[in-house]
Amino acid sequence: MAEDNVVFVGNKEVMNYVLAVTTQFNEGSDEVILKARGRAISTAVDAAEIVRNRFLTGADISDITTDTEKIETDEGGTTNVSAISITLGMSE
Amino acid sequence: MAEDNVVFVGNKEVMNYVLAVTTQFNEGSDEVILKARGRAISTAVDAAEIVRNRFLTGADISDITTDTEKIETDEGGTTNVSAISITLGMSE
Repeated sequence: MAEDNVVFVGNKEVMNYVLAVTTQFNEGSDEVILKARGRAISTAVDAAEIVRNRFLTGADISDITTDTEKIETDEGGTTNVSAISITLGMSE
Repeated sequence: MAEDNVVFVGNKEVMNYVLAVTTQFNEGSDEVILKARGRAISTAVDAAEIVRNRFLTGADISDITTDTEKIETDEGGTTNVSAISITLGMSE
């Protein structure tokens, strides 16, 4: 799930990602990036909002970018999926 | 769904919102804001990406903000829900 201050958001319950982000900050990162695709984008926004409103009130969202990524389908073709990157930084 | 260059994204199919955004631009708006809450956040990102990659290649995302809003539950209490605002502008 986490790799060098990047937390990949999938289909787990949102608190898993809130914990992963807070752990990264507690281990000394001053910036953590939440990445998600497709339906998990909503969960990534939830996680960022919960972290900055309830867990690390010194943290804030410093950047949000979206993109379209091509992924391979099981049939061997490709399909487009939206992606988001939410950068959280410590403002204090 | 649309109100003064704001398109509210709900549970409809994404192309409804793509059409609403392109209509706003074609009617002369130079900026259109997609707003969504909860699970519809992913659809809003999809709509923005489809608009800027396939329908209006001169349009680009100029700002994305997230927030937490309190909404009333059926039982009369309140609950938190994440919200997103995606601003699309014409860069050409």
